Amino acid sequence: MSEFAFKARELDSGDELAPKRAEFVLDEVVYLDGNSLGALPVSVPGRVEDVVRRQWGELRIRSWEESGWWTAPERIGDRIAPLVGAEAGQIVVGDSTSVNVFKALVGAVRLAGEGRDEILVDATTFPTDGYIAESAARLTGRTLRPVTPAEVPSALSDRTAAVLLNHVDYRTGRLHDLPGLTSAVHAAGALAVWDLCHSAGALPVGLDEHGVDLAVGCTYKYLNGGPGSPAYLYVRRDLQDRFDSPLPGWNSHAEPFGMRTEYAPAPGALRGRVGTPDILSMLALEAALDVWDGVSIEAVRTKSLALTDFFLECVAEYVPQDRVESLTPAAHEHRGSQVALRCDDAGEVMKRLIDQNVVGDFRHPDILRFGFTPLYVSFTDVERAARVLGEVVAA
Amino acid sequence: MSEFAFKARELDSGDELAPKRAEFVLDEVVYLDGNSLGALPVSVPGRVEDVVRRQWGELRIRSWEESGWWTAPERIGDRIAPLVGAEAGQIVVGDSTSVNVFKALVGAVRLAGEGRDEILVDATTFPTDGYIAESAARLTGRTLRPVTPAEVPSALSDRTAAVLLNHVDYRTGRLHDLPGLTSAVHAAGALAVWDLCHSAGALPVGLDEHGVDLAVGCTYKYLNGGPGSPAYLYVRRDLQDRFDSPLPGWNSHAEPFGMRTEYAPAPGALRGRVGTPDILSMLALEAALDVWDGVSIEAVRTKSLALTDFFLECVAEYVPQDRVESLTPAAHEHRGSQVALRCDDAGEVMKRLIDQNVVGDFRHPDILRFGFTPLYVSFTDVERAARVLGEVVAA
Repeated sequence: MSEFAFKARELDSGDELAPKRAEFVLDEVVYLDGNSLGALPVSVPGRVEDVVRRQWGELRIRSWEESGWWTAPERIGDRIAPLVGAEAGQIVVGDSTSVNVFKALVGAVRLAGEGRDEILVDATTFPTDGYIAESAARLTGRTLRPVTPAEVPSALSDRTAAVLLNHVDYRTGRLHDLPGLTSAVHAAGALAVWDLCHSAGALPVGLDEHGVDLAVGCTYKYLNGGPGSPAYLYVRRDLQDRFDSPLPGWNSHAEPFGMRTEYAPAPGALRGRVGTPDILSMLALEAALDVWDGVSIEAVRTKSLALTDFFLECVAEYVPQDRVESLTPAAHEHRGSQVALRCDDAGEVMKRLIDQNVVGDFRHPDILRFGFTPLYVSFTDVERAARVLGEVVAA
Repeated sequence: MSEFAFKARELDSGDELAPKRAEFVLDEVVYLDGNSLGALPVSVPGRVEDVVRRQWGELRIRSWEESGWWTAPERIGDRIAPLVGAEAGQIVVGDSTSVNVFKALVGAVRLAGEGRDEILVDATTFPTDGYIAESAARLTGRTLRPVTPAEVPSALSDRTAAVLLNHVDYRTGRLHDLPGLTSAVHAAGALAVWDLCHSAGALPVGLDEHGVDLAVGCTYKYLNGGPGSPAYLYVRRDLQDRFDSPLPGWNSHAEPFGMRTEYAPAPGALRGRVGTPDILSMLALEAALDVWDGVSIEAVRTKSLALTDFFLECVAEYVPQDRVESLTPAAHEHRGSQVALRCDDAGEVMKRLIDQNVVGDFRHPDILRFGFTPLYVSFTDVERAARVLGEVVAA
C-alpha cells in the first residue's frame, strides 16, 4: 500500500461523517460528480413509491390535504433553511433555478425602487443567470452590466439596483466573499441576490447572518434531490411584505382557493410560489433531505476542505506537473467543494477516467471538474481518483 | 334494476373505450375529479421506480444522455401534440401552467410588435391566467383589459396585441369557440393564446387546423400525468423563429453546453425551454401518456358527450329540480367534459358525496363540479353518482 493509500485509510477512520455514506446508493464507481447530480439517497425510492401508489393512486385528490401536498413548498423550504443559515419561513421550493433567478432579480429591482437603473451581474456566472438577468433588465427597463465579482465594489454606485452573484464559481470552484460583497452592495444602497447552486449543502452560507436580501439555489447537487428536482427562493423576512413577484401565480395568492379575480399576495415566503407544485419531484427531494438529520454544515465544510486538500496533494504526487494545473484557489477561504484542473486534452481524459470508473465532468474547453460531496465521498475515493488520473494522463 | 341502471349497463357494453379502464388504478370510488387530478395509470409506478432506482441510482449523471433525460421536454411534447391537433416539433413540456402563460403572453405581445398596446384576457378565466396576464402587461408596458369571451369580437381593435382565452371554463364547463375566436383575433391582427387545461385529452382542440398562435396546458387533468406534473407550451411553427421568450434559460440556448456568455436562442420549439427539467415528474408523465396508444380523440369526445348527456338525464331523474341547476351548456358545441351544478349547500353536499364514495369537487361559493374522464369513467359510474347525489340532497 502506497503512503497516500495508507493516509486515505487513516483519514477515513477519523471521519465522523463516514457513516453517512451508507445512506446513499453507491457502487464501485468513485463518484465525483455530485456537484452536477447528487447520488440517490437510500430513503428516496420507497418514499416515491408511496407517493405514487398510495398518495396519488389511492387517495388521489385528497392528498392535497391529507398527504401534505399543498404545503410542501414551504415545508421543504424550512428543511433547507438551516443548511443555508436561514430561520424558518423564508424559503419556498418550486420551479427551476432559472425561474427563481427571474423572480429574485425582478423582485430585487422593484425593492430598490425607481431611481436605480442598473443591475450588476457576475460575468463569470453560470450562463443561465446572465441570460435571465438580461431578460429581467430588459423587462424592468434597467441596464445590465456584467462585472467580475472582484470588480463589484468599484462598480457599485447610487445607480445600482441589484447585484446577482454566484457563491461558488461553477467552473473554477472559487468561493466568493458573500459577507464582504453583500456588505458592499448594501453600503451602496442596493440589493444582493446570491445563487447558491454550488455552495448549499457543501459549506455554511449564513444567509440571515450576513443579511443577504434574496437567494436562489438548486437542490440536485449537494442536496441530492434528484434530476431536475425543484429549486428554491429565499426572501429575507423583513423584505417579504414588499416583495413583488413578476410571477404572481394562484399559489402565491393570499386566498388561493377563493378564486378571486383580483390578485392579493400571500404574506411571508409563500409569496414566492407560482403554480401547482410538481409533487413527485418535490417529495423525492423531501425524502432526500433526511440524510441531513444530525449533520452540522460546519462538519461538512471541515470534511470538504480535507477532501479537496487531500485530492490536490494526491494529484501533486500522482500526476505529472506539466499535464494539469489547478484552477481552484489554494486558500481555504476562496475554495468551494470542487477542484477544477486545466488539462489540454480534458475531454479525452475525462472519457478515459469514466471508463475507469472515476466519474467527474468535463467543462468546455479544457477543464476537468471534480466535485466532493462530504456526505458520501471517502478519502479512499479521493486517492483512487487521483491515482487513476495519473495513470490516464501517462497512458 | 332501475331503468337508468339498465341503460348504463347497455351503454357500457357498447363503449369502445371501456377496455381502457383497466389501464388505470381504480377502486370502489366513482371518481369524477379527473379534471382536477387524473387517476394513476397502471404503467406509471414501475416506470418511476426504474427512473429512480436505475436511471438515477445506478447510471446517475450518464442518464442525461443514456436515459434520454435531456431530450424529454421535446420528446414528451411530441407525444402530447396529436392529442391537441399539432404536428410534431411545436410543443415542449416543462414548468407550471402559470409560468408557461407568462412565456406565451409576453412572447405574443412581442410578436405583435410595438404599435399594439392592449392585452385582452378572459375575465372568467382560472384566476392564475389573469394574475400572470396582469404581470405580463405591466412588464411589457401594455394595458390589460378583462372581457368575457363573448365580448372579445367587439373588444378587438388595432390596439390589441394578444388575447388570452380558456378553451373550457373551469367552473361552468362551457366550451368556447376556439376556431371562431381565433379567426376574429387574427382578423384584428392580434395573436391568440389559448389555455387548454380543461380541454386537452377530453376533446379535439385542433391547434394547427385553426391557426392558434400559442397555447399552454397542464398535464395532470385529462392527461393523467400526476400531481403537479409539468405543463406545456405550444408555439406555432412559423412563429418560432421570432418567438422571444421572457425566460431565456440555458436549456433554450442554441448550444446549451457551450456555456456562452451571449444568449442565442435554439431553433424550433426548444426555445420554450427554460431551466433543468424536473425528470421524475416528467418521466411519470411520459409513462402516463402510454394510455393514449390507439385512442382517437374523436372517440374520446363522443364518449365524453355521451357521459355528460347521461349524467344530466340521470340528475333530472334522481335529483329534485329545485335543489340543483346545471350551469353547463346543454348544447354539445358549448360543452366541455364536466358538469357544474349550482346548489345552495354545495360545500356540505360535496362532503357527503365524498363520504359516499362519489368524488367530485366543490367550487366556491355554490358549485358542485363533476369531471368525466372518458378513458376510465363508465356509464355505471355516472348513474351511481347521480343516484347518490339524489339521496344526499334528499337527506
